[in-house]
Amino acid sequence: MAGNSFGTLFKLSTFGESHGEAIGGMIDGCPAGLLIDFDFVQHELDRRKPGQSNITTQRRESDRVKFLSGIFEGKTTGAPIGFTIENENQKPADYDHLKDTYRPNHADYTYEQKYGIRDYRGGGRSSARETACRVVGGAIAKLLLAHYHIQVQAYVSTVGHVILEKTYNSLDLSKTDDSIVRCPDAETADRMIGLIEATRKAGDTVGGIITCVINGCPAGLGEPVFDRLHADLGKAMLSINAVKGFEYGEGFRSVHLKGSEMNDRFVSKEDAVHTATNHSGGIQGGISNGEAIYFNVAFKPVATIMQKQHSLDKKGNDIILEGRGRHDPCVLPRAVPIVESMAALVIADHLLRHKTSRIN
Amino acid sequence: MAGNSFGTLFKLSTFGESHGEAIGGMIDGCPAGLLIDFDFVQHELDRRKPGQSNITTQRRESDRVKFLSGIFEGKTTGAPIGFTIENENQKPADYDHLKDTYRPNHADYTYEQKYGIRDYRGGGRSSARETACRVVGGAIAKLLLAHYHIQVQAYVSTVGHVILEKTYNSLDLSKTDDSIVRCPDAETADRMIGLIEATRKAGDTVGGIITCVINGCPAGLGEPVFDRLHADLGKAMLSINAVKGFEYGEGFRSVHLKGSEMNDRFVSKEDAVHTATNHSGGIQGGISNGEAIYFNVAFKPVATIMQKQHSLDKKGNDIILEGRGRHDPCVLPRAVPIVESMAALVIADHLLRHKTSRIN
Amino acid sequence: MAGNSFGTLFKLSTFGESHGEAIGGMIDGCPAGLLIDFDFVQHELDRRKPGQSNITTQRRESDRVKFLSGIFEGKTTGAPIGFTIENENQKPADYDHLKDTYRPNHADYTYEQKYGIRDYRGGGRSSARETACRVVGGAIAKLLLAHYHIQVQAYVSTVGHVILEKTYNSLDLSKTDDSIVRCPDAETADRMIGLIEATRKAGDTVGGIITCVINGCPAGLGEPVFDRLHADLGKAMLSINAVKGFEYGEGFRSVHLKGSEMNDRFVSKEDAVHTATNHSGGIQGGISNGEAIYFNVAFKPVATIMQKQHSLDKKGNDIILEGRGRHDPCVLPRAVPIVESMAALVIADHLLRHKTSRIN
Amino acid sequence: MAGNSFGTLFKLSTFGESHGEAIGGMIDGCPAGLLIDFDFVQHELDRRKPGQSNITTQRRESDRVKFLSGIFEGKTTGAPIGFTIENENQKPADYDHLKDTYRPNHADYTYEQKYGIRDYRGGGRSSARETACRVVGGAIAKLLLAHYHIQVQAYVSTVGHVILEKTYNSLDLSKTDDSIVRCPDAETADRMIGLIEATRKAGDTVGGIITCVINGCPAGLGEPVFDRLHADLGKAMLSINAVKGFEYGEGFRSVHLKGSEMNDRFVSKEDAVHTATNHSGGIQGGISNGEAIYFNVAFKPVATIMQKQHSLDKKGNDIILEGRGRHDPCVLPRAVPIVESMAALVIADHLLRHKTSRIN
Repeated sequence: MAGNSFGTLFKLSTFGESHGEAIGGMIDGCPAGLLIDFDFVQHELDRRKPGQSNITTQRRESDRVKFLSGIFEGKTTGAPIGFTIENENQKPADYDHLKDTYRPNHADYTYEQKYGIRDYRGGGRSSARETACRVVGGAIAKLLLAHYHIQVQAYVSTVGHVILEKTYNSLDLSKTDDSIVRCPDAETADRMIGLIEATRKAGDTVGGIITCVINGCPAGLGEPVFDRLHADLGKAMLSINAVKGFEYGEGFRSVHLKGSEMNDRFVSKEDAVHTATNHSGGIQGGISNGEAIYFNVAFKPVATIMQKQHSLDKKGNDIILEGRGRHDPCVLPRAVPIVESMAALVIADHLLRHKTSRIN
Repeated sequence: MAGNSFGTLFKLSTFGESHGEAIGGMIDGCPAGLLIDFDFVQHELDRRKPGQSNITTQRRESDRVKFLSGIFEGKTTGAPIGFTIENENQKPADYDHLKDTYRPNHADYTYEQKYGIRDYRGGGRSSARETACRVVGGAIAKLLLAHYHIQVQAYVSTVGHVILEKTYNSLDLSKTDDSIVRCPDAETADRMIGLIEATRKAGDTVGGIITCVINGCPAGLGEPVFDRLHADLGKAMLSINAVKGFEYGEGFRSVHLKGSEMNDRFVSKEDAVHTATNHSGGIQGGISNGEAIYFNVAFKPVATIMQKQHSLDKKGNDIILEGRGRHDPCVLPRAVPIVESMAALVIADHLLRHKTSRIN
Repeated sequence: MAGNSFGTLFKLSTFGESHGEAIGGMIDGCPAGLLIDFDFVQHELDRRKPGQSNITTQRRESDRVKFLSGIFEGKTTGAPIGFTIENENQKPADYDHLKDTYRPNHADYTYEQKYGIRDYRGGGRSSARETACRVVGGAIAKLLLAHYHIQVQAYVSTVGHVILEKTYNSLDLSKTDDSIVRCPDAETADRMIGLIEATRKAGDTVGGIITCVINGCPAGLGEPVFDRLHADLGKAMLSINAVKGFEYGEGFRSVHLKGSEMNDRFVSKEDAVHTATNHSGGIQGGISNGEAIYFNVAFKPVATIMQKQHSLDKKGNDIILEGRGRHDPCVLPRAVPIVESMAALVIADHLLRHKTSRIN
Repeated sequence: MAGNSFGTLFKLSTFGESHGEAIGGMIDGCPAGLLIDFDFVQHELDRRKPGQSNITTQRRESDRVKFLSGIFEGKTTGAPIGFTIENENQKPADYDHLKDTYRPNHADYTYEQKYGIRDYRGGGRSSARETACRVVGGAIAKLLLAHYHIQVQAYVSTVGHVILEKTYNSLDLSKTDDSIVRCPDAETADRMIGLIEATRKAGDTVGGIITCVINGCPAGLGEPVFDRLHADLGKAMLSINAVKGFEYGEGFRSVHLKGSEMNDRFVSKEDAVHTATNHSGGIQGGISNGEAIYFNVAFKPVATIMQKQHSLDKKGNDIILEGRGRHDPCVLPRAVPIVESMAALVIADHLLRHKTSRIN
């Protein structure tokens, strides 16, 4: 059972390699009657595309999405939404030297072990180019969520040792895209940019953390015992290239808290049940409780570095590799819309799943 | 779509509440011909059961699993393996006072918001009692993995501020069960036990981290792009009660590493490809690379504390709650077999999925 | 991927062999708040159980269902509904002589080819005893459908050469259970009973057709292109033991009709859209149109006959088999509740699936 | 949960409407290393395409498939195989008059009831144009089956009252495509063609039966209890436009047989177990037994006729419709590759599923 579909009721399937003719996919299960804002979808893609700023790869691709089905007179029809994005920047010959090489921390070796064959051109299916399709699916999901007044917003909260100390609820998230690094705090953003530039000059790469906040999510989403809301969010995030960790609410910090410190007291506000604090991260017992959902996603540094590295070729011979081409010194800024997209897909799916929870 | 099944080819489904007649489930997709060691299955359940030591709840349940189908003359037949575990310790009346109450950080409020109805007896479906069924499924999965010489071992690596500083590859994991806290380092184990006992005396609870190591896993398991091996491991862990975070390999620490520090150099050992270091955690590009897989799971402190807490009842009135009964001050020791079980289920599932990856 | 679950949102999973300790299963995805009429569920099981009349097997089993979870104070809670039915009539020794034998038209040979191992006691997993679990699931589904005023009714319309000439809409289906053969036309029922008795005396068996009618189904159920409503009904029926064919609406007769004869004219009745005729069988383009859904299910004669038959043993030696024990000369009367149950499961599933078809 | 995917391990997903920009889909789970014969795939599409003979619609579309991913240097890589087929013959304006009209026996009314919106251009998603994608998926599946020496062959066995009296095992199926009607018996084929031409001249349409035979299928495929091999074949066939019935082996004829007539005696041939007759149709207990699998699929006459018909518009007004444009008087000849494709998809899926049935 191959794993190129995500979701149960709102389901995204993707296909495509970085240097094939096109990447694409389909969204099955989007309710009929949703008005599609095509400019918004393209805008989301533009937030992910290479070449958008000095601190991302200088590779240029226009990443125009072409919708092929499922939309009629501007609205979804209930039929699957098929789409493609052409690969304009195909230079397969650039990769001939990698044909028999295992690059460190890339998927070269494992794909070959799994499939016995490998499309070595630009990472093939393992390339993060595939995530452009997730952004298309996520943009449609966001439009569905907007209909229910649910908002998904992510931002870069850590790059290497530069850490944004402010918490999600003390930030103005509308400012995230004001900075090319997508950190809503201007001063921290500047330091992050400085670090990324210095790292690039050193021919190295750097990781970081993206924090995501979901506001307006109603209580009741999540399907225990296995499909807890945060379990599906976690899987969604861990399926993104370079992600090494996920935590929600207090996350790993909760390890050091006592129960009396961790518990969120229920309080009544304007005749509604709320919690006075939100250590839980908006999810209790695997089900949303109506408070803000927030979580952190850890990204490792990019594997391709502009330094000499030892490695092996297929025959087991020691070789020296040196990165070339146009790569990101830090994927975090471009990963913000990917994190949002995967989160939106999960919430859209659970929103639909929840519709059958009760008889009335 | 309710979420009480886990896995695609090796699939566990569970049912049951903490105070109903029985809990149980079925395993569908276990290959035929597997010899079942019933003592081993029961031993695994005993590692999870309450009342096993001074630092766990003193509630007593024998937790005997009864297999109803799918096994003939000691071997699996390919038919689904149904099983039940009786609830012996049913005292529903103990919970009458919670009928209209929302306990902090429990699932009382969210279940009611989702379903409009709630089995308030002992947490109902949200109770961690359900995880006994996961241990049954996990034990069968472990037997399957043993057939392929794959070993899953977890241990407690952090309790509150007591942190085991040694890494997975410098520990003798056969000693994990020597200590009631299930930490393989005797000195650290003692300090953890001390902290748990002090916490209980204070009427409070404490969280921690469980580390899990999988040895012997062949290269090739994992199904990109969405069902990456670590994404399914992450979801499995996040579906366990009280888990707030998951990281594999260097995890959140990789955020602060440079690419040149994070990359694992490929080396040839005895004519096989290995990596000199294992920052990646045995998984690259979402597929196992043959090195040890290791990951951390963060547990929050138990919500039920023996202290007075403010909360709300259904009508929105402020109330004072005080924990009573027999609860764990720290779930970590009993959660070790649960973490192992969920990991074994994931690896068993991917082992079967991998069988169709190639035409030959 | 083993195939012991049915449905997507309203999902029944079953386990159990005819001579194990118990059979059972679980229903996952039943909406919360449904009142369970336990007497009705047991009554449905009684319609299927052996020994209920002179023309069925004289084997006696009480077939009492025990619900273990998912129901609280008489209502479903949204948690999975686990249940078991004990096997009281276990006489495994009765089957020792079949251990190495391949009975004609049974699953002995194919199960052994598939799994390499076979529980030969009473057919093991291939026994129609498993269908008792489907009746439990179907009864819950019927209760859900009743909430939406949808009614599923099946009856025996053919036994061997005895054919009920009246069509579904000219019969009083409330009379179906008046006859032990479950044909609502008294005169035809008598002839069917006569044929079954004569067949039994001859040591032989006979097949037949069950017709099923679903009234009150709203327009809109069905999920093209693959999960057309009739495709899921067809699969449901073909998954029942001994079924060899399925047709809906005019079915195989439509082959001989012209388009001008087959088409159902749309007409307006009481301001609602209806069709003047119903050759389509209540489904058009794979989606229910609000008219009565009706279909036929063909059952082959039971394989076990009370006559000498040549066959092979495991070693390929020719042997002579003679049926013994207590078997049905015709399964049709007892299969009526099974057909209804599978139909109810399909409609319940699609009723839930339809809830997410539109944004509003 | 929308229904645009088919299969579990070998999975086809499709998208596209008859008058959108393109139709397409993806195949996920095809094992790596399969050599793709592109000419064969196109040849299969050509067998389905309109305008191929005098007795099909004279609409012309080239139906060229474009593969976008998953194939590298002529072989599958294990990555999903994405593909598109352009819609060249788009004349949306041709359908403006149908915007508010419910054509009899079309999906106009039911789609509108389900989704509240309808792409009325040429039937939108309900158009049989979608089946071109199934032929692409089926062609890939056939290539996989060929690797295992399994052959899927269908032919037209009935058109209206013209019935081919010979059974599947007395025909030379290599002659099927010799006739434009795809009946392997030349004399019967001529009569069928005559009937179709006469029917077209009368402005009417006619149905028929396609018989499909699968040779070389090994024993052991099928996943009881719900995913019996014939249940999945039945669903596959019933998901094809215009299909009203499915039967396998003796099918509906078995109703009139006695058990003693229906049973297939096991015999030993060349040291292998076979059956002397094949009334069962190659499947027993839901699992293939190694004999030829054969089944019949009933197609109703095409709904669009060149005669005046009464119908309703959206407002409930009586209207008169008259078919125009280029339609098939009989879909059977073009449906032969569709039936084969769906059968090949089912067998390929079960072939992969069977790989995990046993531990060794």
